[in-house]
Amino acid sequence: MSIAPDATLRSPAIGWDGQCLSLLDQRLLPAQRIYVECTRAVEVAAAIRDMVVRGAPAIGIAAAYGVALAVREHESLSGTTRRAALDAELEVLAAARPTAVNLGWALKRLRPLLERGAGFEEVAAAAEGLHDEDVAANRTLARLGASQLGPASRVLTHCNTGPLATGGVGTALGVIVSAWRAGKLGEVRFTETRPWLQGARLTAWELADAGVPATLMTDSAAGGSAARGEIDWLVVGADRIAANGDVVNKVGTAPLAALTRMGGGRVMVVAPFSTVDLDLARGGGVTIESRAGDEVWRATQAPDVPEGIVIDNPAFDITPAQWVDVLVTERGLISPAGGELPGRLEAVGMIK
Amino acid sequence: MSIAPDATLRSPAIGWDGQCLSLLDQRLLPAQRIYVECTRAVEVAAAIRDMVVRGAPAIGIAAAYGVALAVREHESLSGTTRRAALDAELEVLAAARPTAVNLGWALKRLRPLLERGAGFEEVAAAAEGLHDEDVAANRTLARLGASQLGPASRVLTHCNTGPLATGGVGTALGVIVSAWRAGKLGEVRFTETRPWLQGARLTAWELADAGVPATLMTDSAAGGSAARGEIDWLVVGADRIAANGDVVNKVGTAPLAALTRMGGGRVMVVAPFSTVDLDLARGGGVTIESRAGDEVWRATQAPDVPEGIVIDNPAFDITPAQWVDVLVTERGLISPAGGELPGRLEAVGMIK
Repeated sequence: MSIAPDATLRSPAIGWDGQCLSLLDQRLLPAQRIYVECTRAVEVAAAIRDMVVRGAPAIGIAAAYGVALAVREHESLSGTTRRAALDAELEVLAAARPTAVNLGWALKRLRPLLERGAGFEEVAAAAEGLHDEDVAANRTLARLGASQLGPASRVLTHCNTGPLATGGVGTALGVIVSAWRAGKLGEVRFTETRPWLQGARLTAWELADAGVPATLMTDSAAGGSAARGEIDWLVVGADRIAANGDVVNKVGTAPLAALTRMGGGRVMVVAPFSTVDLDLARGGGVTIESRAGDEVWRATQAPDVPEGIVIDNPAFDITPAQWVDVLVTERGLISPAGGELPGRLEAVGMIK
Repeated sequence: MSIAPDATLRSPAIGWDGQCLSLLDQRLLPAQRIYVECTRAVEVAAAIRDMVVRGAPAIGIAAAYGVALAVREHESLSGTTRRAALDAELEVLAAARPTAVNLGWALKRLRPLLERGAGFEEVAAAAEGLHDEDVAANRTLARLGASQLGPASRVLTHCNTGPLATGGVGTALGVIVSAWRAGKLGEVRFTETRPWLQGARLTAWELADAGVPATLMTDSAAGGSAARGEIDWLVVGADRIAANGDVVNKVGTAPLAALTRMGGGRVMVVAPFSTVDLDLARGGGVTIESRAGDEVWRATQAPDVPEGIVIDNPAFDITPAQWVDVLVTERGLISPAGGELPGRLEAVGMIK
């Protein structure tokens, strides 16, 4: 089963034929390769909530196409009725996953078009534009991130950040594939990423597609390996980056970052600039999505959770800025630690 | 499904009727409760290797009954022929799981009986004696360990160390249940423990049976929680403790210990004294059992591992002595850090 990007470096996760959004159902991978077709915004929101599509950049792109579908659905309306209908659709899309910033960012980018009454064709073209931007950003991220990796680096990644999580070749995984092809890596390891197994179910196939030999470990075994000094670089993506540099990412990222540094390795966070949320003062201010306990429990194959046992299943955690050595964005590299980001981003020309 | 110890505080995991060893098949729990009956040593060895029975103390007890079964099988032999047959059986038992010391310890305890030609009844009685010793040791461990926990302690445990892993009420889990009943605990959390899910499949039921409300988390989420300072005590068992105080235990223990200490919590290791292996200079000298990759992969429900991907599945890791605050044995409490154990154990009367 190939899940490699196509010749335009677009991900196979998100298809758009100008009328219908096709999302590769990532809950069924790698056993089955089935696309869910969405022709209404509410269907896109459900697909995001239920994790048919996941990965912060991919969620943002899917939501953008969802906005276009909402505009088409309410084409017959006008004026305040139309605005109210679209606002309601955008609210449903925004609420689908609360933690990743890319979703809100995509909606924010398209909102001005809606406000001046743009039609379906124009909004759809803007969504395609966002998608193309992500494809281009991915290529830049891969090049910039790989430039930081020394010869024979032993790298570890967590969760899924390749084509299935993005619009293009990926964020952290794009860096790893690019560095591998440049002969810079000694060893690639990746975690299975409980409870959703994004690593074992998705990243394994992306690495195989890219021809990168790699070692799969449980999250715990990988953390122990990092603490023993077997990892030079932990390379991960991000769902949201706060103004103080804190990184919100898949649960398990913070302990892996701490353990990698304890073992003498370094931590690289790779994300499109849209992941930086300067309106969020610090990581602790974010709403961490708490998902259903069944995502954890179902692995036991037992029907019921015993009485008195509850399951805590946070989807994300917060890696403090001081645990991150370098943040790679398509606008350049920066150390997220060492002071509030806005002034420093301005100083290096990454924002105006 | 109750898996609580019986009125004599014996674990339901290991049954012995004087002729046949019944092992509760822990691979099928909690969905099915099926006993595997062993009447020959080679069947006991297979049950240990295949993890029908697991948990360091339980493995030691099962192996002891296995020795008795070997003696019965070769009763018709005598002299050097009998000795050679028994040596071969002991070798098969010893090789079943290489890391835990309790297995080798049980065999060592029974070897003098074999050398003086003891018969089945006598060896079986000695195996029952070892079993009873473990039941008694468990009770002492629970009392001593619980004495160390302050009011409203928030505790985390990893893997399975209750009745299913031992001959009696357990090691680390015995401490937790005892402390809970004494009103000393504010919160109990436990990890699912990938890849075998000893926490979610086994510890969940032991806690429910004991009436201890508790929260299940993935290994990563628990590690993050500990690093954030939400855990006062990590309480775990051990498979082998080296002469320098290093602790060999279920993979994932070392990162949880590091993260708990990073968050300001402390680490308690609870194990019968037979787990201390003064012949092992340091943890790094132990053979870490590497188990089949399929134990990790099967969770994906995909038939094949993609080409180029390998799976590293170590069963144990090594927690350095300096990360452990207190080691609880039935002979007393000691800090494993701070110098080689033998002299210090002698000084406090724990060995002669």
